[in-house]
Parts: sequence; structure tokens; C-alpha cells
Amino acid sequence: MALYIIGLGLHDQKDITLKGLELIKKSDEVFIEYYTSKLACSIKELEELYGKKVNIADRKFIEILSDEKIVKPALEKNISVLVIGDPFSATTHIDLMQRAKKTGVHVEIVNNASVLNAVGITGLELYKFGKVTSIPFGNENIKTPIDVFNINKNVGMHTLFLLDLNPKENKYMTINEAITYLIKNGVDENLTAIGLAELGSNSAIIKSATLKKLKDLIFDKFPQCLIIPGNLHFMEEEMLEYYQVK
Amino acid sequence: MALYIIGLGLHDQKDITLKGLELIKKSDEVFIEYYTSKLACSIKELEELYGKKVNIADRKFIEILSDEKIVKPALEKNISVLVIGDPFSATTHIDLMQRAKKTGVHVEIVNNASVLNAVGITGLELYKFGKVTSIPFGNENIKTPIDVFNINKNVGMHTLFLLDLNPKENKYMTINEAITYLIKNGVDENLTAIGLAELGSNSAIIKSATLKKLKDLIFDKFPQCLIIPGNLHFMEEEMLEYYQVK
Repeated sequence: MALYIIGLGLHDQKDITLKGLELIKKSDEVFIEYYTSKLACSIKELEELYGKKVNIADRKFIEILSDEKIVKPALEKNISVLVIGDPFSATTHIDLMQRAKKTGVHVEIVNNASVLNAVGITGLELYKFGKVTSIPFGNENIKTPIDVFNINKNVGMHTLFLLDLNPKENKYMTINEAITYLIKNGVDENLTAIGLAELGSNSAIIKSATLKKLKDLIFDKFPQCLIIPGNLHFMEEEMLEYYQVK
Repeated sequence: MALYIIGLGLHDQKDITLKGLELIKKSDEVFIEYYTSKLACSIKELEELYGKKVNIADRKFIEILSDEKIVKPALEKNISVLVIGDPFSATTHIDLMQRAKKTGVHVEIVNNASVLNAVGITGLELYKFGKVTSIPFGNENIKTPIDVFNINKNVGMHTLFLLDLNPKENKYMTINEAITYLIKNGVDENLTAIGLAELGSNSAIIKSATLKKLKDLIFDKFPQCLIIPGNLHFMEEEMLEYYQVK
């Protein structure tokens, strides 16, 4: 009897680890948290691989119903909660883990890749990123991303902007929209940035240019994110050149 | 014909993804980069799972011989390079990827969890970490970790200190040694910190206390790392309590 919180990685059904798959196969019930990110495969494809029914849990389910539907039942059977990316990419799952442990449930975590690893493909050192920030839909009066960027920039750190998404409604913020927001809020359009789409897949799109130029390029895969680098080591500069749009 | 750069995750042979395992099975030659981290399983256990010989590549091999031994051969056969954690946790592999691409080699990356995800188990928000820094052996005249910590602390970000290791000689820096270094270099011993050992496994040790107190606690698993949190959200505080040593 246990609760398994299992990361699925970034792209499709084959990004699960052997450990994760083994635990799902031992599970009596399987839930997938499916509101903060998306996979390139369908729930049906997951079910075929697992040989199990996969129940979609939305935010409300995880935050409000999880004591009754997940934590308590995990005292008597094996329950898997699947999370796109890594289980710890959202505090919700740490909270779920701790509530379960306090209830006496045996909990196992299966880590996986998240966007925080995958941005390494740019050649920017992962260790030199500062705070990560999200640009939400409906951002007319939102200044947090700008504040975070300015703090990072002042101390030379790279900034990763995650772009809002609503997979349920198939709605994804584009790099174009994100840059429009940044420029409107005073970010210098001549800064070099990197646009990234469908990271973690082998068809990821990665392009580097000034914000001004990047804004008009086409990124036709999702989800998307954006990086504005801080101080660059010459090796990072060299690597970025590889993605530069002339 | 291709070069596959495959993350193995943090703990043992079962942390590989289905995608990674499939590519290894298609490979004519398999190398493992085995000098910046360690797994809890042996090379032999990896070989048994893969059904392939796994050749150990040290830093010199990857940095000096890889054109000849990896990049060029990958024009004619399938070569896998295995990396503990995520492929992008070291710039060496991005460099390898780019050299291969420039040579005309088809490259596929398989991401996996790294310590950057796994520290999420503390309840600290991954998005609120600043720069990551390493405390090396022979640190008498080294100040970088202190500088990075001060910058992060000033802007309220969490600091992750990675502790040096030399798996070849079975030498791992301990949390105790790291804290001794920090205090000797002026870090306030009354600050709360979190010590972590064997992260990514289900037997990870996680303890939170002041640096002064943490210094004398026993962590008998490896590798180890240390976090000094920046400004804490009340939810982060609540989660940290769970690991607090009274």
C-alpha cells in the first residue's frame, strides 16, 4: 500500500522511467495531473502502455478532493499520481506528499526531467539561472515577471520565462505574445533572447535573436518558453551562436 | 547512424527512461561518463539491463578523445553516451552535442532528472533558487561559493551548494566539511540550512537545522548537498518543518 508520485518527463509516453512504469503496473488506481502542462501523446496512448485506466485529475481534484480520493485510499491500496515533467515542478505535489506522509501513507517519488533541465540544450549553464518566472494570460497589471527579470539581470543571472497554458482549452501563450508583454513593460527590445518550443522532444525549435527580431519569427510547436541570458561566458556565447537567426 | 546522449537519472539502473533504453539497445557502442557523479548500482548491473558492454569514459576521454572515439564513429554507427542525471548538467555534453551536429552527425538527447529537480523534495520552490555553486576539495583560497551565496541571499533566492566528489577514488565531500568551509568564510552559523544525502532515491536523508547544529548531524549516504534558503513563503516554511531536527 503506497502513494507513488511519478514524473512522466516532457514529451511522450516513452519518457517514463522503468521505475515509474513498474510502480504504475503495481497500482490499483492511476491519476494524471493534467492542467499545468501537456504531453505530445494522448491519454489513450498512456493507457495502452500501462495496461491501466488513467483518470484525469484537474487542479481542483488534487487540491480539494485528494485527501478523500488519493491520500486515504493509499492506506489500503497502491495509488499512482502521474505528473508531467518532474513531480516537484509544482508545490501542489510536495503538499500532497507531505499530507500523505503525515497520514501514515508510504510514499515513493519517481523524479524525471523538467523544463529546468531541458533548457540546458541552449548551451546556457543551468547553474547560472536565477529565479524562474511565469507570464500569465491576462497580464495587463502584472509586474512580477519584470521584477524577477530585473533582479536576475542586475546580478548577471539568466532568466527563464515560462509561458502560460491551458491544455484543457488548448490555449498556449506564444513567444510573440510574451515578447509583446515584455517590451510593453519596458524591457529593451535589443536584448538577445532565446525562444524555445516543444522542449524535451527531438523536434524542439530553438532560435536566438534580439527580442525585436524574435517576436516576428514563427514557432509552431507548444508549449513555448523564453530565456533572456544574463552575463555570458565565452563558451555559452559560442554555443548560443549555433541557434542564432541571421 | 546517430549519437544518443542519454540521461540516466539519479539513483540506479531503473531510472533510465523507456526511450533511453530503446536507444541503447540500438547502439553499436555505449560509453558512460563516470567522473562527475555516481549511481547506486554497478556498471555490471547496467550492462545486464542493457545487454551491452558499457565502456567507462573519464573526463579526458570525453574532452580530448571524443572527436575520434565518439563523434566521427557516430557518422557510421549508433553510439550512446550515458550521463548520470541529465545530459545538460555539464557543459561538456552540450559541447559534444554541438561538435557532433557540426560534423553532420544526427544527435538525439534523452533528458532525465538531475539534482536540480530532486531538491524539490525539500518543499522549497524550484523556481526560487538562484545560481547554483559547487564547493570543491582544496578550497582554502576559493571564495566563489561565498560570493554566489551572498548575491542570492541579498535578493532572497535559495542557494544550492553541490559538494565535490571523486567517484573514481570513492571520495565525497560531506555536509560537515562543507559547513566548516562556509562558517570559516564568514557565513552566519545561525542560518537555517538543509542537508541532503542520496537525493533521488527513496532512502534519501533530508534534515533541516541551523548550520551550527547540522554540522554535527550524521549523514551516511552519498553524494551530499546543502541548501541555504532565501526568503521563505509560508508554505515553504511549513514544508521545511517536516524535515526539522528538534
